[in-house]
Amino acid sequence: MNPSFTKLKDRLAEINDLGKALSILGWDQQTMMPPRGSAVRAEQMATLGRIAHEKFTSDEVGRLLDELEGFESSMPYDSDEASLVRVTRTDWEKARRVPSELRAELTRQASLALPVWIDARERSDFKSFLPALRTNLELRHRYIECFEPAENPYDIVLDDFERGMTTAEVSVVFDRIKAEQGQLIADLRERAADVDPLRGDFPQDRQKQFELSVVERFGFERESWRLDPTVHPFASGGGIDDIRITTRYIEDSLEGLFATMHETGHGLYEHGVAPELERSPLARGTSLGLHESQSRMWENLVGRSLPFWRFFYPSLKETFPEALGGVELEEFYPRVNTVRPSLIRVEADEATYNMHIILRFELEQEILSGAVALEELSEAWRARVDEYLGIDVPDDRRGVLQDVHWAGGHIGYFPTYALGNVLSAQIWERILVDIPELYDQFEQGDFGELRGWLREHLHRHGRKFTPKETIERVCGGPIDPEPYLRYLRDKLGGIYGLAATPA
Amino acid sequence: MNPSFTKLKDRLAEINDLGKALSILGWDQQTMMPPRGSAVRAEQMATLGRIAHEKFTSDEVGRLLDELEGFESSMPYDSDEASLVRVTRTDWEKARRVPSELRAELTRQASLALPVWIDARERSDFKSFLPALRTNLELRHRYIECFEPAENPYDIVLDDFERGMTTAEVSVVFDRIKAEQGQLIADLRERAADVDPLRGDFPQDRQKQFELSVVERFGFERESWRLDPTVHPFASGGGIDDIRITTRYIEDSLEGLFATMHETGHGLYEHGVAPELERSPLARGTSLGLHESQSRMWENLVGRSLPFWRFFYPSLKETFPEALGGVELEEFYPRVNTVRPSLIRVEADEATYNMHIILRFELEQEILSGAVALEELSEAWRARVDEYLGIDVPDDRRGVLQDVHWAGGHIGYFPTYALGNVLSAQIWERILVDIPELYDQFEQGDFGELRGWLREHLHRHGRKFTPKETIERVCGGPIDPEPYLRYLRDKLGGIYGLAATPA
Repeated sequence: MNPSFTKLKDRLAEINDLGKALSILGWDQQTMMPPRGSAVRAEQMATLGRIAHEKFTSDEVGRLLDELEGFESSMPYDSDEASLVRVTRTDWEKARRVPSELRAELTRQASLALPVWIDARERSDFKSFLPALRTNLELRHRYIECFEPAENPYDIVLDDFERGMTTAEVSVVFDRIKAEQGQLIADLRERAADVDPLRGDFPQDRQKQFELSVVERFGFERESWRLDPTVHPFASGGGIDDIRITTRYIEDSLEGLFATMHETGHGLYEHGVAPELERSPLARGTSLGLHESQSRMWENLVGRSLPFWRFFYPSLKETFPEALGGVELEEFYPRVNTVRPSLIRVEADEATYNMHIILRFELEQEILSGAVALEELSEAWRARVDEYLGIDVPDDRRGVLQDVHWAGGHIGYFPTYALGNVLSAQIWERILVDIPELYDQFEQGDFGELRGWLREHLHRHGRKFTPKETIERVCGGPIDPEPYLRYLRDKLGGIYGLAATPA
Repeated sequence: MNPSFTKLKDRLAEINDLGKALSILGWDQQTMMPPRGSAVRAEQMATLGRIAHEKFTSDEVGRLLDELEGFESSMPYDSDEASLVRVTRTDWEKARRVPSELRAELTRQASLALPVWIDARERSDFKSFLPALRTNLELRHRYIECFEPAENPYDIVLDDFERGMTTAEVSVVFDRIKAEQGQLIADLRERAADVDPLRGDFPQDRQKQFELSVVERFGFERESWRLDPTVHPFASGGGIDDIRITTRYIEDSLEGLFATMHETGHGLYEHGVAPELERSPLARGTSLGLHESQSRMWENLVGRSLPFWRFFYPSLKETFPEALGGVELEEFYPRVNTVRPSLIRVEADEATYNMHIILRFELEQEILSGAVALEELSEAWRARVDEYLGIDVPDDRRGVLQDVHWAGGHIGYFPTYALGNVLSAQIWERILVDIPELYDQFEQGDFGELRGWLREHLHRHGRKFTPKETIERVCGGPIDPEPYLRYLRDKLGGIYGLAATPA
């Protein structure tokens, strides 16, 4: 093997070790750490992050990348070797553009803004969050200035989460979705009004037991996975065979079950990466959008489907006889698929969720361009929620202050959630062509062929290909909103008696 | 503040962060990690260890130490500043003597030897462990050669665990103990033979609940501590306010309770370090011996005392009515203080434990000097156990292969366990002078004054003083075996009717 390549690989493995150590520290922080450990933990994580960043942006990595130009072009494009060099080069060039003082300042301000946001949200007081938000926005402008000017400055922040995707491309998808889902929401307003979301007595220990019985069929293995409770569910881990998913338990609802299936989707992506890529920067999902396509797929396309519940409902009923004794599957299924415009993104149903994203995507561009001044953001938010969802925002806590992202300085992150929805259905249509008996398998509690398909076509490649290349390889074409719109119309049409074909 | 000092402190804080990250990764590995995560975790821990070592042994640290000579001597000896420079200089000079290749080889061989030892122990086959042990011993010789020749080569390995303590000094203490405890064991052989250790039905969940009720009175606070089950109990953590203790649950015994009290003793030492020392190399216990003095104190001098049980026994009985319904305190107390020569060190009682250590201390010196060839070690072990404990070793699994230390290349570690016993009683005598009503407090379930005394005299100083300086400060004189021997004679005399004063 080329000695420069071996050197680069070793150096990257070391950096990856630091990153995974950070993951475990972060997981521990949110699941295990005694609360008073937080101050010193923040220092430890900052130190590890700084060392990893210094090691990665070193001149030595640049020199090795230069030495490897010939090697890279001598190897097939999709080989692990060429991919490692190619992806590392892109990462390195991007990372080198940002001076370490700015990077440190971004991290520091995000830490400072977090408690301010928590307090502002609690008191539903946007004004008190404004100075912190302003600083974050200013720093984000300075960050954008580190790069070559783009068609749209938003392209640069979007690239951090969905590499190579442009604002214009996302807008095309979102404009189509906005029109169609807006119409769908209007069509369903009356029809879905009397189907209430499921509520009842679901004791926590039995929830966990039932959840495990579900996700073990998805691919959760006790030898390589953990499931723990936390406040805001997430998926994380220490490696391909050390997957940590988290969930939360709400005693009067099954929300935690859907959160667990969601996080299992993320976990399966990370767990499905080819073992040869372990300890390299390729050993994870290629973008947030593709990651979300997996979590939303297992949560919604699998976990809220009728064939899934045909298999699992009897055991759910047996597990929770108090809550479900008198409820038949025909009543239960619509009640885990209610459609109701609501205030909080993370609680939104499949038909309204994307609208929450689109309004954030638009507002982010508007505050970045100055079209909306930060002072007007709360008002702009209310107007947009009224326009897209037809509901009033009673306070900032349930409005502009509901999400943590802007406190962390993360602008450009939100669109990946809706891209994930879109991609989940687009991939699903391909799967249904390859596995026509998919739903029959679900009715037997069998998800192995689905998992195998995803691993073969998507998971095993990790980060070898860009999001666009990956979508092209998996779906045979670029991102396309139509499958998701068809999926929604078909599914909700079946439940609420709409015409299956969109107007 | 002196700018070189600030620089040194920052650099050490970073190294300390890496060390604490390593602690958390190690804790996770032994309590939480899915088993298949182990391979990549080993890489992560090796990487963090290597980076911390490189950063610490850098020329820059040496240069800063040189620059700080004047600063150090201008500050009081016991100031945090002078202590930081002084302790760092000793650490640095020691660390620099060992070439990184040898250090890497020591770590690598220890990893390789571990599974060999596990397998050999399982099959009770010392011969199959012999090659790995030989390599470890050879490497340890090479390690010793890195240092200035000492009076006894064993001094050098002992120094890694009990800095500044010499083999000759330990021998004086151990010779006295060996004679006295040997006699005590002989005296008790008949008297204690019919008092059986406590056995019964102690369901795990109730054990945990009872343990917490005990250690919360010792100082375990849920805001800063955790208690989790593991295979081999240990104490660890991420910082002064992030203390992790572990225990194991054996359903037919209360061993786990004593393990929990033991680990709480370690935790209280780490938790009691002055917050000003956090993120510095001074923010931990000063030696393994002094650490063990704390764990053994809470486990034995507190947790196996009659006043302690006068307070706790009613609630223990209430918690385990099946096992203890008919057992009165007068019967219970001797049964958690049985004396019976046994094969396994970690299960040994207070009267026989030190003999297990002394035989290892002697054998370690003998294999290091070549007086005992490794091929003869199993036989030498059997002979020594027969001589000191009067029992036959039926197999190597319960003999020479029982402990992990030699597989890890750790020679010089064992004596610290017995030094801990000795020191626990020596400190205890001081405490009884300062707090004459100590046992009355225990009978009220009050351990706050004990904890406060330990924090004031020992814990808060962390690693500022050497073990010898610490003992001098806490006990007013050098290490002395007499208090422990008095303690044993008095306590066991009370239970088994021996004369309280040694012959």
